Amino acid sequence: MVPIVSNSSNRMPKYIAIAAVTLDGKIARHKNHMSDWTSKEDKVFMRALLDKCDVIIVGNNTYKTAVGPLSKRNCIVLSKTAEPSPLTRGDVAQRVTERLLYANPQKTNLKKLIRALNYKKIAILGGAQTYTYCLQNNLFDEIYLTIEPIIFGQGVDLFAPSPSEGRVGERVQKHKLKLFSIKKLNKQGSLLLHYKK
Amino acid sequence: MVPIVSNSSNRMPKYIAIAAVTLDGKIARHKNHMSDWTSKEDKVFMRALLDKCDVIIVGNNTYKTAVGPLSKRNCIVLSKTAEPSPLTRGDVAQRVTERLLYANPQKTNLKKLIRALNYKKIAILGGAQTYTYCLQNNLFDEIYLTIEPIIFGQGVDLFAPSPSEGRVGERVQKHKLKLFSIKKLNKQGSLLLHYKK
Repeated sequence: MVPIVSNSSNRMPKYIAIAAVTLDGKIARHKNHMSDWTSKEDKVFMRALLDKCDVIIVGNNTYKTAVGPLSKRNCIVLSKTAEPSPLTRGDVAQRVTERLLYANPQKTNLKKLIRALNYKKIAILGGAQTYTYCLQNNLFDEIYLTIEPIIFGQGVDLFAPSPSEGRVGERVQKHKLKLFSIKKLNKQGSLLLHYKK
Repeated sequence: MVPIVSNSSNRMPKYIAIAAVTLDGKIARHKNHMSDWTSKEDKVFMRALLDKCDVIIVGNNTYKTAVGPLSKRNCIVLSKTAEPSPLTRGDVAQRVTERLLYANPQKTNLKKLIRALNYKKIAILGGAQTYTYCLQNNLFDEIYLTIEPIIFGQGVDLFAPSPSEGRVGERVQKHKLKLFSIKKLNKQGSLLLHYKK
């Protein structure tokens, strides 16, 4: 059995968000919408990148929509209802299998947990709450953003303002990034953008 | 004085949306936020494109934030409170100056009005309600979308679901486009994408 603890070298953990959005910045049409609308080229890219990562941070809802493929990979599933059990000093997380670990983001120091587990390359797979949590908690070094040439008109945003942020316009966080590479994935124009903070 | 009626040839009117968004698909941080966050390269591009257009369709709020530069161009300002006065057969619009015309989108057949005024190249400058109105009413042939390498985390979407569309997930319109060109505008990675329907 492949251990959940990574054998990577001693470098600093790198947090890599992976997301596909519509031209109007939506990651889904509604809360329970799966990623059946993304191009096959994006899916191929995503799988190849996940192959290179040590672990995936994913929200509970997103995990449930893709249990099949994700159960074969190391995952830390963020869930506010995860029952804490001592795992590493000062952290709480609930191990389900060798590959699957639940963590309550409100009770767990995720950065510390990742360090304790010696993961070096961490994929952030969404959904909106998970992207937002990682962005706000400095677990966000890069993003691979696929822009599909489609408009939903409305739907789920890449980032979800937390209730504590108050109404739109108040306490909005701003983050500057730098575009690192551009790749056109197919004829229709699915575009893979790689940004770094 | 330059007449508001265009002298363009007999081709069909082309509706070209122009928008700048953050990496997370926001056109502003809040309702009254001006476009002070976009790159100077994007502003240069926008002005050059507007120079080639016969008229600008713009919402009243957006118009107010840029009265100075926009007052020098032919504008149709969309406003729900515009007072109708007969202009062309079957249409209502309120002319303020040679260059400025107010139209109530709920009472005006904008397509018919544009045809009557003989405009051929129409720029749609936003904001969200105006982009949405044009998208939903088939006044949307192309979009020049500048993606600035910045994250707002929350803010104003490119498209605004109308109240009649009900809750998120219901009656969402989907539009497929094709990526026509990509241009990196500066070192930081502001990206100009041109899509056609």
